[in-house]
Amino acid sequence: MALIVQKYGGTSVGSVERIDAVAKKVAKFHQNGDQVVVVVSAMSGETNRLLDLARQVSDQPIPRELDVLLATGEQVTIALLSMALHKHGVEARSYTGSQVHILTDDAFNKARIQEIDDARIRRDLSEGRVVVVAGFQGTDKDGNITTLGRGGSDTTAVALAAALKSDECQIYTDVDGVYTTDPRVESKARRIDRISYEEMLEMASLGAKVLQIRSVEFASKYSVPLRVLSSFEDGSGTLICAEDETMEQALIAGIAFNRDEAKLTVVGVPDQPGVAHSILGPIGKANIEVDMIIQNTGADGKTTDFTCTVHRNDYKQALAIVQKVAEGMGARSVIGDDKIVKVSLVGVGMRSHAGIASTMFEALAKEGINIRMISTSEIKISVAIDEKYLELAVRSLHSAFGLEQQA
Amino acid sequence: MALIVQKYGGTSVGSVERIDAVAKKVAKFHQNGDQVVVVVSAMSGETNRLLDLARQVSDQPIPRELDVLLATGEQVTIALLSMALHKHGVEARSYTGSQVHILTDDAFNKARIQEIDDARIRRDLSEGRVVVVAGFQGTDKDGNITTLGRGGSDTTAVALAAALKSDECQIYTDVDGVYTTDPRVESKARRIDRISYEEMLEMASLGAKVLQIRSVEFASKYSVPLRVLSSFEDGSGTLICAEDETMEQALIAGIAFNRDEAKLTVVGVPDQPGVAHSILGPIGKANIEVDMIIQNTGADGKTTDFTCTVHRNDYKQALAIVQKVAEGMGARSVIGDDKIVKVSLVGVGMRSHAGIASTMFEALAKEGINIRMISTSEIKISVAIDEKYLELAVRSLHSAFGLEQQA
Repeated sequence: MALIVQKYGGTSVGSVERIDAVAKKVAKFHQNGDQVVVVVSAMSGETNRLLDLARQVSDQPIPRELDVLLATGEQVTIALLSMALHKHGVEARSYTGSQVHILTDDAFNKARIQEIDDARIRRDLSEGRVVVVAGFQGTDKDGNITTLGRGGSDTTAVALAAALKSDECQIYTDVDGVYTTDPRVESKARRIDRISYEEMLEMASLGAKVLQIRSVEFASKYSVPLRVLSSFEDGSGTLICAEDETMEQALIAGIAFNRDEAKLTVVGVPDQPGVAHSILGPIGKANIEVDMIIQNTGADGKTTDFTCTVHRNDYKQALAIVQKVAEGMGARSVIGDDKIVKVSLVGVGMRSHAGIASTMFEALAKEGINIRMISTSEIKISVAIDEKYLELAVRSLHSAFGLEQQA
Repeated sequence: MALIVQKYGGTSVGSVERIDAVAKKVAKFHQNGDQVVVVVSAMSGETNRLLDLARQVSDQPIPRELDVLLATGEQVTIALLSMALHKHGVEARSYTGSQVHILTDDAFNKARIQEIDDARIRRDLSEGRVVVVAGFQGTDKDGNITTLGRGGSDTTAVALAAALKSDECQIYTDVDGVYTTDPRVESKARRIDRISYEEMLEMASLGAKVLQIRSVEFASKYSVPLRVLSSFEDGSGTLICAEDETMEQALIAGIAFNRDEAKLTVVGVPDQPGVAHSILGPIGKANIEVDMIIQNTGADGKTTDFTCTVHRNDYKQALAIVQKVAEGMGARSVIGDDKIVKVSLVGVGMRSHAGIASTMFEALAKEGINIRMISTSEIKISVAIDEKYLELAVRSLHSAFGLEQQA
C-alpha cells in the first residue's frame, strides 16, 4: 500500500471516453489498497477555447481575470473525473486549488506555489476516498485565484506529492517515458529506466519536452520520486530520482538537442574588461534570451572573439543590436549564422570519467561534422553544429556511447 | 449616488458582444457615481453544455460534483465581464460565490443562502471598483461548492442587495417589466410601474415567469426594492416593493394564467373526516404536486364531491391512483379532465373592495365561458375553465377591469 500522486495532462482527459479510462486506471490503484491523489489539467482544447473568448472581449485581458477564467478549465475536469470514479464504485472528492489552499504568490498567470494545507486531503484519504485536485491553479493570500503558467499541473502534482510525502509522483502523458534521445531522430532510442534529477533538468532545459523544468526542480528540492508514464499503455515508464539511487547508470544518460539556435560572433573586439556586458546588456534590454556564451582570446593577444547564441526567432533583431554595439567598440566585424543547432550529451557519469569529450569529438569528426562551438558544464557537453548535420550527429553519438543497450 | 445591485441573466450575457453591451451599461452607472455590484448567470447554453458532459460521464452524476461542474459557468462570465469593464476604463473585480463567502446549507443542486460576508465587496466599492459576483453559487460551511438551483442568480442578487442594504436590486432580463398579463395573449397588456411583493408572488406562482418566486420572497423578507428591466432597451421597468408604497394602485394588478392544469373529481364520497387525506396522501407519495383543492358537500348531505388539479404531465398517473382510492372508499365515480386551464386575478385591492369576484364572473358569463372551479385567497381569485376559452377569458377580464389604462 502506497500513497501516490498521479497527474493526467490535457490529452489524457481530452474527452469523456478518456476521462472514463483514467477513472478505471485510478480505480485499479484504489482497489489495490493504494491511497491516490489525482491532479488533472483542463481537457485538451479547453484552455485555448477560453483564451479565445478572452481575446474576443479584450486585446489585453487583465491578468487577474484571465486566471479566474482559465481556472474553470481544470474545475470542469475534476468534477467529471470524480463523477466517473463514482460510477466505477470509487468514492472520490474533487477540490479546486483554492479549496485545498494551494497558496501561491500573487503573480497572476505565472504564480509560484508557497504552501499547501494538506489536512483536508489527508482526512479524505484516511476515510478511503480518492482525492481529485485541479492542477495549474491556486489562491494568493487575499483569496484571489491564481494560475501557475505553462506546465503548472506538473508542478501542482509534485508540490502535493512533497506536502503529502507521497511515495511517488506519477506523471501520465502521451509518451511512455524519457528516452535516450528523440525516437523520431534515432529509432534505436531507448526508454531510460532511471535518471537523476540533475540529468533530467539538463535534458529538459536542452530540449527534451517530456517534463516541465519547474516541476523537476521542485521534485529535486523536496526529493519526490517522479515517474513519467503513458496514460494509454501499461509500462513502468521512467523514474526520476536522486543520484545515489542510480549509481549503476551508464556514463551518458541521453542526448538532447535544440533546433532553434542562431549564432552571433563579434570578431576582433579590443580585449578589455566589460566586453561581455557591453554586448549582452543591449540584447537583454531587448528581452532576447541568450543561450550559449563563449569568449576566446584572439591570436594577437590584444583582441578577442565573442560568440553567443539566441533563439532563431530573435536572430535578426539581435544581429542589428550587436552590429551597432560592435561598431561603437571598434570591433573588426560581426558574423552571424541562423542555421545552427545544439546537440548535448548529458550524464552524471561525466564527473568521474574522463575521455567523454574526446569520444564525442571523435565520433563527430568521423562523420565529417564540423564543431562550431563547444560549451560544457559538470554533467553535460554541448556543441553547436550546422543544422544539416543534426540527425547524423545524434545517431552517431547514440551509437558511439552505446545508448541503445540497457545500462 | 446610489448603491445598486444589478443582475444580468444568461441571455443578457449570451455572447461576447452582449457581455460588452452589459459592460457599457454598467460603466454608465459607474460614471454617474453609483456604486454597482453586478451578479451574472452563465452564458446562455453553457449550463446545458456542462449538463450534457456530466450525463455523458454518468447517468446519475453525484450532486456534489455536479455543483463543482456547473459553478464554472458563472465563473467564466464574471471573468469576461470584468475584462470588458476594464476595457471600458472601469476598474472591476470578479468574485465566485466562495470568494465572497455566500454561505449556504449543504443541499447540493438546490442550496439555500444562509449568510453573506460583505466586507470584501464593501472595501472594493469604497475604493471605486465595480464588483462582479457569480450568481447561482455559494459554499457550505465545509467549503464545498454549492449551487442554488433554478433562478438561483436572482436569489444571489437579492441576497447581496439585502446584505449590502442596497438602494435597489435591478433584474435585467429579456422583457422590459412585469405586464398586466401575457402580451402574447392580450396585445393591450400594459407594463406595470409598481407592484407589491405579495401581488408579484401570486403572479409568479400563478404562472408569470419573469421572476423566480424565491427571489421575490427573499426581497419581501428583507424589504429589498426589486426592479425588473430589459437589458436590451432603455426604460424604467417594473418596481416590486412593499405595499404601502403602492397605495394608489388599481384594484387588480394583473391576470396570471396557467395552461398545464388537469382536474380530477371524486364524486359521491361518503362525507366523513379524513376524506381529503385519503385521496391526497397517495398522490403526494407518488411525488405529484397538487394545485387547487376543492371539496363540496353533496346534495344528499351524506356524500361529498372532492376535486383537485395537478400538472397535465402527471394526469394519467394521478387518475390511476385516485381511481384505486375511490374504489376503496366506495365513491360513486371519478371524473377527469386534462383540458382545463387556470386564470387568476391578482390584486391587493381585493382586500378592501367587494364585488371583484362578481365582476369577474359576470365578464366570463357574458362570453359564455363556463367556470369549472373557483378558488380564492386574500389577494387573488382563480377559476378553472376549459382550455379553449383561455385567450377569450384573459382578454375579457383585462378589459372588464380596465387594465389597459394606467392606474
